[in-house]
Amino acid sequence: MRVAERVRSVPGYPQAGVLFRDITPILAHGESFATVTTELAAATGDAELVVGVEARGFLLGAAVAIVAGVGTVPVRKAGKLPSVAASRSYDLEYGSATLELPAGVVEPGTRVYVVDDVLATGGTAAATCALLADAGAEVVGFGTLLELTALHGRAKLGDLRIDALLNA
Amino acid sequence: MRVAERVRSVPGYPQAGVLFRDITPILAHGESFATVTTELAAATGDAELVVGVEARGFLLGAAVAIVAGVGTVPVRKAGKLPSVAASRSYDLEYGSATLELPAGVVEPGTRVYVVDDVLATGGTAAATCALLADAGAEVVGFGTLLELTALHGRAKLGDLRIDALLNA
Repeated sequence: MRVAERVRSVPGYPQAGVLFRDITPILAHGESFATVTTELAAATGDAELVVGVEARGFLLGAAVAIVAGVGTVPVRKAGKLPSVAASRSYDLEYGSATLELPAGVVEPGTRVYVVDDVLATGGTAAATCALLADAGAEVVGFGTLLELTALHGRAKLGDLRIDALLNA
Repeated sequence: MRVAERVRSVPGYPQAGVLFRDITPILAHGESFATVTTELAAATGDAELVVGVEARGFLLGAAVAIVAGVGTVPVRKAGKLPSVAASRSYDLEYGSATLELPAGVVEPGTRVYVVDDVLATGGTAAATCALLADAGAEVVGFGTLLELTALHGRAKLGDLRIDALLNA
């Protein structure tokens, strides 16, 4: 089975009208997990750190970091960190969300590669990049397993290099 | 700096009287991250899958899995999965929490190694192991960065092999 065939589509989750793309089966399959991780690790280039976005981005981000030979830092939803370096709120379809960067682990000037499982509307990815810029880091690229091209998330990321392994 | 010296202690978080142990700086430092990941990956033995516990356990669990050459599966807090194979509630100091295993990714008989960042009271670890047993998996060991020995979490895990890299 090809890696792309392991994406599981779940209609009506998390709400009516949404077709949720579940990448869990890719990560659970050793060979597929290695394939996608190796590919994204190669794309990190000269990045010194990989940032994973809560929560599914932690899984892929940490694996990419260890294969690339660098550390990993989680960008978390609000209220989960004991000390915060920077914080960014962004709009969701209904309401808003806030992302936070932990204190003391990203030095200004650090070259950072951002990883999340899916690139959808781009709101989370853009907020993560803004947060890292606030902390003085240089975001060198964004890597994802799956880009939902119809949602045009790429447009929110400006000139940033985007590595999307699969499209839907 | 030794790996152990990178654990950051935060008094009064998440509530008064608690000394929170933050392992973020270990994961953020490439060399330390590689050291702890390699050590835990070696401890997985013949495990076919690494389960990480939400959310910090995802980071270490995914890294351990990729180094061990197997897949990773997240055990999640309630309400975050589109389809659930098994669910377990357990008591916290105040109230309770529920953990869920995603559907379709853990076959009965699979040998699983469980990873979390810290072993504290053992409630989360025990619930995760029970959840995996419900799904027919065989839990072959539990790996953690840091064991808080004064909280006796180990006692909740019976005869399970526990690999704790640091103690506090």
